[in-house]
Amino acid sequence: MIEITFPDGKKRTYEDGTTALQIAESISNQLAKNVLSAELNGKIIEANQPLYESGSLRLFTWDSDEGKRAFWHSSAHLMAQAILDYYPNAKLTIGPPIENGFYYDIDFGDDVFGEADFEKIEKQMLKRAQEKAEFKMRNVSKQEALEFYKDNPYKTELIQNLEDGTITFCDHSTFTDLCRGGHIPNTGFIKAVKILNAAGAYWRGDEKNKQLTRVYGISFPKQSMLDEYLQRLEEAKKRDHRRLGAELELFAFSQRVGKGLPLWLPKGTALRERLVKFLQEAQKKAGYQQVITPHIGHKDLYVCSGHYAKYGKDSFQPITTPEEGEEFLLKPMNCPHHCEIYRVKPRSYKELPLRLAEFGTVYRYEQSGELHGLTRVRGFTQDDAHIFCTPDQLKDEFKKVIDLVLYIFKALDFNEYKAQVSLRDPNNPDKYIGSEENWQKAEQAIIEAAAEKGLPTVVEYGEAAFYGPKLDFMVKDALGRMWQLGTIQVDYNLPERFELEYKGADNQMHRPVMIHRAPFGSMERFVAVLLEHCGGNFPIWLAPDQVIILPVSEKYHEYALKVAEQLNHHDIRAIIDERNEKVGRKIRDAEVSKIPYMIIVGEREQEHNILNVRKHGGETLGEMNIPTFVERLTNEINNLIPQFTNP
Amino acid sequence: MIEITFPDGKKRTYEDGTTALQIAESISNQLAKNVLSAELNGKIIEANQPLYESGSLRLFTWDSDEGKRAFWHSSAHLMAQAILDYYPNAKLTIGPPIENGFYYDIDFGDDVFGEADFEKIEKQMLKRAQEKAEFKMRNVSKQEALEFYKDNPYKTELIQNLEDGTITFCDHSTFTDLCRGGHIPNTGFIKAVKILNAAGAYWRGDEKNKQLTRVYGISFPKQSMLDEYLQRLEEAKKRDHRRLGAELELFAFSQRVGKGLPLWLPKGTALRERLVKFLQEAQKKAGYQQVITPHIGHKDLYVCSGHYAKYGKDSFQPITTPEEGEEFLLKPMNCPHHCEIYRVKPRSYKELPLRLAEFGTVYRYEQSGELHGLTRVRGFTQDDAHIFCTPDQLKDEFKKVIDLVLYIFKALDFNEYKAQVSLRDPNNPDKYIGSEENWQKAEQAIIEAAAEKGLPTVVEYGEAAFYGPKLDFMVKDALGRMWQLGTIQVDYNLPERFELEYKGADNQMHRPVMIHRAPFGSMERFVAVLLEHCGGNFPIWLAPDQVIILPVSEKYHEYALKVAEQLNHHDIRAIIDERNEKVGRKIRDAEVSKIPYMIIVGEREQEHNILNVRKHGGETLGEMNIPTFVERLTNEINNLIPQFTNP
Repeated sequence: MIEITFPDGKKRTYEDGTTALQIAESISNQLAKNVLSAELNGKIIEANQPLYESGSLRLFTWDSDEGKRAFWHSSAHLMAQAILDYYPNAKLTIGPPIENGFYYDIDFGDDVFGEADFEKIEKQMLKRAQEKAEFKMRNVSKQEALEFYKDNPYKTELIQNLEDGTITFCDHSTFTDLCRGGHIPNTGFIKAVKILNAAGAYWRGDEKNKQLTRVYGISFPKQSMLDEYLQRLEEAKKRDHRRLGAELELFAFSQRVGKGLPLWLPKGTALRERLVKFLQEAQKKAGYQQVITPHIGHKDLYVCSGHYAKYGKDSFQPITTPEEGEEFLLKPMNCPHHCEIYRVKPRSYKELPLRLAEFGTVYRYEQSGELHGLTRVRGFTQDDAHIFCTPDQLKDEFKKVIDLVLYIFKALDFNEYKAQVSLRDPNNPDKYIGSEENWQKAEQAIIEAAAEKGLPTVVEYGEAAFYGPKLDFMVKDALGRMWQLGTIQVDYNLPERFELEYKGADNQMHRPVMIHRAPFGSMERFVAVLLEHCGGNFPIWLAPDQVIILPVSEKYHEYALKVAEQLNHHDIRAIIDERNEKVGRKIRDAEVSKIPYMIIVGEREQEHNILNVRKHGGETLGEMNIPTFVERLTNEINNLIPQFTNP
Repeated sequence: MIEITFPDGKKRTYEDGTTALQIAESISNQLAKNVLSAELNGKIIEANQPLYESGSLRLFTWDSDEGKRAFWHSSAHLMAQAILDYYPNAKLTIGPPIENGFYYDIDFGDDVFGEADFEKIEKQMLKRAQEKAEFKMRNVSKQEALEFYKDNPYKTELIQNLEDGTITFCDHSTFTDLCRGGHIPNTGFIKAVKILNAAGAYWRGDEKNKQLTRVYGISFPKQSMLDEYLQRLEEAKKRDHRRLGAELELFAFSQRVGKGLPLWLPKGTALRERLVKFLQEAQKKAGYQQVITPHIGHKDLYVCSGHYAKYGKDSFQPITTPEEGEEFLLKPMNCPHHCEIYRVKPRSYKELPLRLAEFGTVYRYEQSGELHGLTRVRGFTQDDAHIFCTPDQLKDEFKKVIDLVLYIFKALDFNEYKAQVSLRDPNNPDKYIGSEENWQKAEQAIIEAAAEKGLPTVVEYGEAAFYGPKLDFMVKDALGRMWQLGTIQVDYNLPERFELEYKGADNQMHRPVMIHRAPFGSMERFVAVLLEHCGGNFPIWLAPDQVIILPVSEKYHEYALKVAEQLNHHDIRAIIDERNEKVGRKIRDAEVSKIPYMIIVGEREQEHNILNVRKHGGETLGEMNIPTFVERLTNEINNLIPQFTNP
């Protein structure tokens, strides 16, 4: 008999050789139908594999990452089988599950595999799936394995690197693969498949090797799930911030300036500056003081902060001076500079909390292959601030920062969010710096602050940095994707390294605590997320242009100019489409530019000194006079930005 | 007979052996009394030296740099004589005139020379001056010279490096010196002297050599001029921006961050941001668009722009990436980045002039010995913009930039200024790039634009850059010193190198012209000049704190807070001095902080809900209610900033 412990702590005994699926059945038929994969004592097992060992069992369904992984891993086998059905001479290499779906790298020999071939493979996969063939693992000797793959140099190379006695194959239906396991019970679970792409990929990622074809696919247990996924994919493509950024002329990249170094174009700059001003105003009310520090620092600064020892080798390399042989680094973080500002004069407890804020541009090396639009860049501007406070002030400061972050989420229409509290690993207390008392105080401060602010949180043990616990915010965008935005981080390390001090009420010197925080994270990443969240239809207070005036012909340019001046006078950003184009074309182009309001002016409007107003998306508001329109827009804008009030 | 040509082109003949002084006498006795030095055919001569050569003669009085140089050179001899009178064993080395006064490096042997000795030397100098001894040059052989200085190793070393036959001595009264000439007629001209300082200096500036004493002095033809100079020196010390910057907590430096890399503290940042906003608002009205570009650029960018070939070796050295071996440079200028923004899309003549503005921080290596406060730094933020226009638009754009610059001067109380127009060297047309036609157009555009705007200008031929003519602004500060602020520069080179183009109305592709311009120059330098100009008493609209509220005791803190809130609500920057200090002390400290208004609140003020108002500098405005004060201040602020109107 084996004793199985379930995640809730309950235990049950089963006969030797019982499978995870049978155990699921013993709980409920419904569960058994949904179980895709299982884990025994922390090791992934096959759901249909007889168990001879007691231990902790977890059962995975589609709702878990592990369940999806087993599903897509199994789908890769199914796809390979279908491909071999059509291309019996194709040589398989490796085929793992990925974040969304799976791929298989295949040497098609003289055959060419492309988009035209996707559909037949999808059909064949679904046909094969209906066999409901079980995935069955078996041990093979190295010799057997090499013999089986004698015509496949790729698998041969993989097998040669494995120890005899550890090699396993997986069989299903007509198909066999070298495989470490982790499958769904049978192919019948796979109800919907889509081949997404076929692209070149070098064997083992080395461009000196032969180029293979990487075939990407995705699969689901229901057709409706695939449909929904494809729709979201389509929507995500439309909302890709790189595409929108170019279309709306917000930012650009230049190879000559350098990869991953964005150039902010006029409209993007205006948008970014508006976000900066918005946060600055709230921060001013919340008692922050702005500072400006250089973008480089002497190597000594980073030796002092510890950043050099930790990141020096993998970062942008030092900048030397021609005669004096000094070494400077592009600043990867603003904190060391802010510590030096703290040290400019002796500090008293009366000055704390001291909140130093800077929209500070930092530079961090990323491999060029890792760069991605504005979300992964080599230079970015953090909405950074460092709060220097006493340990007793931590909780209050955390609450204030939470207020600020939630204010931003609200103003920018991120209505779903959660936060992760990262605490020490209780089993490994020695890897953290700072006293036990301070850690307890800080962890409690974060947990209580989040609770008092009603913030939905998950607690993760062992996720704290070595220098302090932290709180990270995740927001859900309009497509349901989660983004990490904003972080609040306690730091006991830098005050120690920089020997920061303040004179307490007791006339003794004490060490302050530091909080790092950045609600946006960085302007680059935030603008990217915002762009994808709103699909380029910015809240009107942020829109680069709020109104576009479309004269129906050149005769009305003068009236258009008069209207624009009146709107600009009321701080409404209005532009004129002066091109010699038909008004229909102008409207279509304004729609593409996602400008919230269009004003059409012609004979009638000029004569009666009125406007003909149309909203982005097609809604017609009709005729109104200028003051009415100004009032409407001003109210709309003011209602959209909640006032930040310092509680 | 010799024929003398005067600067106005007139010619007169004189007998051989006539001196410049006698020639001056032949013109007017008044002139003869004032002539200090002369130049014949471009070579400095002694005013009392007999002339045997025809040519162009210039006579120099105190009002010219050459006159002052002769005066201070002669004063160095006089000081050396006076010092030898007291310290006969002192060994002289070199003693040149400098920008303000002169110095002499002296080996005092076992004697110590310091501040206590200054007065006796000054007295001795004046006593010796009354001898009205003439300075007389004579040729000496190398052997004679070495013999004369046999006990002085410094002069011996100097003489050994001279060619026999070129060595001259100057005698006056009891004193003889190795000297190349250029003296005033006699010592009697020197009516006022001051020894300013005595500091260590190594022989030949090499720290391996013996340390000498550098004695600094200054002298004048009138006592009143010395008095005035010393007063200005005192005032300049008080206004030194490094001192005021520290006292007012505007900026600081940290060795650990790096020399010449300013840290802007909260009050300095607020001031700077206010200046930025002020200029940005004017620029917006003037049709500029803000952009943001990274602080580094790939080496290729600067190879393309030509900056790398020109400055690469003497600048901050390239930053490499760890794996990919790319090379980046800290950006020394924003223009290459803006050219890349121009290239983001095809441009049409309809988009021109395209005015791209950026408060762009650039980094340029300076030797650490050359660094000085905020005026000479290694990183600074230019209020940069690049105007891309057609050659025909140049003049109009120049006029617009002049308007902007003069608007700034007016708003910031720089009431005296002039401009220098730098044109080609007509004798050297080949060193310039760009067509003759474009140069003529551009030079004419600048001259006409300046004339039409009534700007006082001087024209300098040969001062243009190789890539285009320019206009530089100089302002006079409150101490009468001239500062270069702001520059407008035409550029034919970068559009060529970056192959910039626009489609003209003729449907053909054309090359635009670029204008570089920076009215402030840099935020760092401008704030330094402004600080010294206003002595820290900023115009109220710029003042970091506009009002300080001084409660006479803790009892009135609550009322003080209420007043502060009301002022803040009207965008008046008010702070409270909450310290437990007597009100007299609080007033004194507020004076030091140069806060424009002080409001004293106590029993009476709280009871009647009024304020007791005092201006910085001591003027008492007495009691008034809050709305009256708000109105007064708001009016004052609004009247001080002229509105920029785009003509």
